[in-house]
Amino acid sequence: MTHDFDSAIALAPSGPDRFTGSTHPAYANMVGPYGGITCATLLQAVLLHPQRLGTPVALTVNYAGPIADGAFEISARATRTNRSTQHWNLELSQQGVIATTATAVFALRRPSWSSVEASAHGNLPPPAQLPAADLSARLPWTGRYDMRFVDGAFPEPLDGVEQPQSLARVWLRDEPPRPLDFLSLAALCDAFFPRVYTRRRRFTPAGTVTLSAYFHADEAMLASQGTQHVLGVARGLAYHQGFHDQSAEIWGQGGQLLATTHQMVYFRD
Amino acid sequence: MTHDFDSAIALAPSGPDRFTGSTHPAYANMVGPYGGITCATLLQAVLLHPQRLGTPVALTVNYAGPIADGAFEISARATRTNRSTQHWNLELSQQGVIATTATAVFALRRPSWSSVEASAHGNLPPPAQLPAADLSARLPWTGRYDMRFVDGAFPEPLDGVEQPQSLARVWLRDEPPRPLDFLSLAALCDAFFPRVYTRRRRFTPAGTVTLSAYFHADEAMLASQGTQHVLGVARGLAYHQGFHDQSAEIWGQGGQLLATTHQMVYFRD
Repeated sequence: MTHDFDSAIALAPSGPDRFTGSTHPAYANMVGPYGGITCATLLQAVLLHPQRLGTPVALTVNYAGPIADGAFEISARATRTNRSTQHWNLELSQQGVIATTATAVFALRRPSWSSVEASAHGNLPPPAQLPAADLSARLPWTGRYDMRFVDGAFPEPLDGVEQPQSLARVWLRDEPPRPLDFLSLAALCDAFFPRVYTRRRRFTPAGTVTLSAYFHADEAMLASQGTQHVLGVARGLAYHQGFHDQSAEIWGQGGQLLATTHQMVYFRD
Repeated sequence: MTHDFDSAIALAPSGPDRFTGSTHPAYANMVGPYGGITCATLLQAVLLHPQRLGTPVALTVNYAGPIADGAFEISARATRTNRSTQHWNLELSQQGVIATTATAVFALRRPSWSSVEASAHGNLPPPAQLPAADLSARLPWTGRYDMRFVDGAFPEPLDGVEQPQSLARVWLRDEPPRPLDFLSLAALCDAFFPRVYTRRRRFTPAGTVTLSAYFHADEAMLASQGTQHVLGVARGLAYHQGFHDQSAEIWGQGGQLLATTHQMVYFRD
């Protein structure tokens, strides 16, 4: 049986540098699709492209406007191909109106000196000792993840009591389980709700305007994760004049840093 | 007298959505221009564009290939304009070959709840108590900055003694002084040399492949900085298979977080 994730990111070629796809109800957000599934769908366009070189190094997705439920078209154009790196421009549009733009960097990666410098998060309770969060009544896409918060769960009640920091540490895996790959890793990069909710404990319209994902994992590292939970760690840095940023890490089992990701979030006061 | 920075980012309109400019020797890097001056030049294209809405929120620059010394052309296209946000696609090309691609998000920003959550760096020695670094023999563009390292100066000698971390804290201002604005702030986002040099203390080819800058400052915050030094804080997170990321903060006087910035760096082993 096809996983809903794979159905949601399925694309059909529709011409040179063009693909068509459709939103999937399993990954619906409050309005339009979950941003992470859009990341994965855009990455998929490059992965399916006959000119693609290597594996993902970086992906930046700009949420330029709402995506309506239904069909969309993606254009994917290699802007420059070098010996070992390749740059891509992507646009997702509906009825000729651009809803999302993106750029991607791919590369033929080779063994090199390697190090994880970011601080690891040792001695956390393992997923089996934590309850699974359930926000799916609010946000359908969250039902497609098993999320187990060590700290920084979605604030309930939304009592307006301001918090000094927004750190969240959460075990994450696809629900039902699906072996980790670049596509699901890209989707996980947007799995952290706006940090302003944690800080202010009140609900206001908010959404990602731009997100970058940096891929540190190679295919062997991803394969070794299988369907285990990964650890997501997210925090905000600055909130000002209707926008804030947040940074996150996706850690694999064994202290592997699989991806780092950063975004700017729009929020209403 | 025109500051070299303003000469370096000067653009002339050359048609709808098009500008021409030229590299400037004062901001030369080892090969081609300093990446930060390219960031500022691309941002300038949007700032000069007659359709531009508001001020910068985010800029992502992809260094797709080398920029040769001399003339270049920039295309700047508004991909989507909403009520209060606007998205841009940019390409810098020479003789029809794309060298750099970029996306930008602009917005009409309004007062909102505000907070700096990132950890401040208190009690550092002020710039006047630190020597100015001089790397300009190696890298011409560094002579266009007054850089005073609290820690994490460019490693000398390059003795190959591996270090456990890459943190740099450095006071930065334009040389000669120039009042801070969005353009110079964008340029400062690339002022942190590849963290792999600090970690490995050996020189290998390395360069930014993609950089994102998130602007937290508004015009009043920038104006209040004037020509004072700002504090740059940079660190690497993960190094693997020829690429590593690094994140940095640009702090203003008075504990203001002016910008955060992230990049993926290519490095040879």
